Amino acid sequence: MTPSPNDIITLGHGGGGRLMHDLIVNELLAASDVMTERELEDAALIHDGRLAISTDGFTVKPLFFPGGDIGKLAACGTINDVAMRGARPRWIAVAMIIQEGFALEDLRRIVRSIRAACDADGVHVVTGDTKVVGRSAADGIFITTTGVGERFAEPAPSATAARPGDRVLVSGTLGDHGICILAAREELSLGGSQTADGRHILKSDCASLLTLTEAIVGAGGSAVRTLRDMTRGGMSAALNEIAMSSGGSIEIEEVSVPVRREVVGACELLGMSPFEIANEGKLLAVVAPEAAADVLAAIRAHEMGADAAIVGTVGDGRPGRVSARTPLGTSRLIDLPAGELLPRIC
Amino acid sequence: MTPSPNDIITLGHGGGGRLMHDLIVNELLAASDVMTERELEDAALIHDGRLAISTDGFTVKPLFFPGGDIGKLAACGTINDVAMRGARPRWIAVAMIIQEGFALEDLRRIVRSIRAACDADGVHVVTGDTKVVGRSAADGIFITTTGVGERFAEPAPSATAARPGDRVLVSGTLGDHGICILAAREELSLGGSQTADGRHILKSDCASLLTLTEAIVGAGGSAVRTLRDMTRGGMSAALNEIAMSSGGSIEIEEVSVPVRREVVGACELLGMSPFEIANEGKLLAVVAPEAAADVLAAIRAHEMGADAAIVGTVGDGRPGRVSARTPLGTSRLIDLPAGELLPRIC
Repeated sequence: MTPSPNDIITLGHGGGGRLMHDLIVNELLAASDVMTERELEDAALIHDGRLAISTDGFTVKPLFFPGGDIGKLAACGTINDVAMRGARPRWIAVAMIIQEGFALEDLRRIVRSIRAACDADGVHVVTGDTKVVGRSAADGIFITTTGVGERFAEPAPSATAARPGDRVLVSGTLGDHGICILAAREELSLGGSQTADGRHILKSDCASLLTLTEAIVGAGGSAVRTLRDMTRGGMSAALNEIAMSSGGSIEIEEVSVPVRREVVGACELLGMSPFEIANEGKLLAVVAPEAAADVLAAIRAHEMGADAAIVGTVGDGRPGRVSARTPLGTSRLIDLPAGELLPRIC
Repeated sequence: MTPSPNDIITLGHGGGGRLMHDLIVNELLAASDVMTERELEDAALIHDGRLAISTDGFTVKPLFFPGGDIGKLAACGTINDVAMRGARPRWIAVAMIIQEGFALEDLRRIVRSIRAACDADGVHVVTGDTKVVGRSAADGIFITTTGVGERFAEPAPSATAARPGDRVLVSGTLGDHGICILAAREELSLGGSQTADGRHILKSDCASLLTLTEAIVGAGGSAVRTLRDMTRGGMSAALNEIAMSSGGSIEIEEVSVPVRREVVGACELLGMSPFEIANEGKLLAVVAPEAAADVLAAIRAHEMGADAAIVGTVGDGRPGRVSARTPLGTSRLIDLPAGELLPRIC
């Protein structure tokens, strides 16, 4: 009997949007006796809250792209998830599933990228695992990294902690990673993505957010309510998760959100919203109003934060509601992205 | 240009033997600033040695087999690796890479298995990740688990700690998991693997080794030098790794090694050695001679240890040399398995 479409996993289940949220809540949380829908965070606190742990599988295609590769992505992605709970990543475990026939030279490049990204943040690769599967059983290499870090922020930033009146900040332009991957995969020449001499203008923003996080917590202290890196599902997914977890509403000023002109152009071409596109080196911070200006200044003073902006406010409207005020002064709903956005974006 | 066979990954690189060892030592250790060839352990010590962490990717095929499934395997495999360092697993992270079209009902079964295995040992699934890839990009589901545990053994058992005179124990019959998977995959009717009414006699030994480990450390204390679960590459790989790491030699009495008659028969048919076949619920312990009898008694008193035996001794022969005394009284070399044994055995 052929299973009905409702009974099988689709690409949309991995897209970071509504389908993935429902899969996690309805099916996967059953694996745990401690995880709840309300507390789906980037990393979990363990060992009496002194440590944070996060795991992430990386399946990005292509493996090498302007601005990074799967190794850098796998290291930085997990470093960032740990950092979002106000913890300094110290140890990382690397598990690889490799397709038979994979080029050893590509593996070497990936290993060097992991090492370079970890060294830059003082993170130690302490253990690993390698599996090899047949040619038809995987596509290139998949890397799962798990990071453990020591907490330095008190309390730990949490999606549950946003309060009415808090300001919402983003650390830079949105959508660079997703559009870069899409362009590299489809060999699209998106507006401005390459100069005449082949230099890429639109690069992935793939980077560690650790030092930026330290600067934010240094400036804002306990006024830093929530930190979230805007990966799959982009800013829209992050905002909806924070609104759901905190029970607040969030309103964004659309004109305040920084997006590169090339990304706006590509999104118009593709019929996508830059708010829903994945980033790999941008964070969203929810900060108590009295500290928002200081935190914004600290982000802008950081080399990765020149385009940072205050983009919205937490309100006491319908719990979980996220909306944007448009340039015309009207309001539109920002929903959790529906399903498949860009498969294998990370 | 077609890459030469020396420049690509082969199935043998994932087999737990010589090729995998060389890949790790020559290529993958470059990812780390702290790992060394001599200290390749089942789990790494972190947080001033108070915690142990281990990661493992699971790609077993078929996903469901007599005695377990990929969910139970993924939970128990990582629980066991953490336990082998004398640590009690407390927290586990689960990352899934799922093929588009995978049946939700199979996912539910797997999730239930993970939960049941974790609940039995008081382990909490604290975080996870889900990626979905296209139909041609994976085969079913791959699960990477990472476990963190609190150390209770002092000192932590280590492959480096074996000393001349120490006794080598195994906790039960060898090869059950590997032969079961092979039979299930090839739909082989191996001698005695199924009764007339379809009941499987030869089951995977997939199980948690935590309580057995606690019993061993309880009986042997600091006399327990090394613990190793005998997964890919079986007892042969474990013995060679211990001999290399400790700089000792090891001699096994072949007749002392417990192997089920059905496994012996299947191995003869397939031209394999039961010493090289993967187990998923058997451990090898190296114990100081004065405590060996007490530890053996403790293992035999455990429900999983009825077939335990002292199988050999650490010597001061050529460092790294592993040999077996045959029933005829001659000695033969037990090498690290060469390469591909049974792909996707775990």
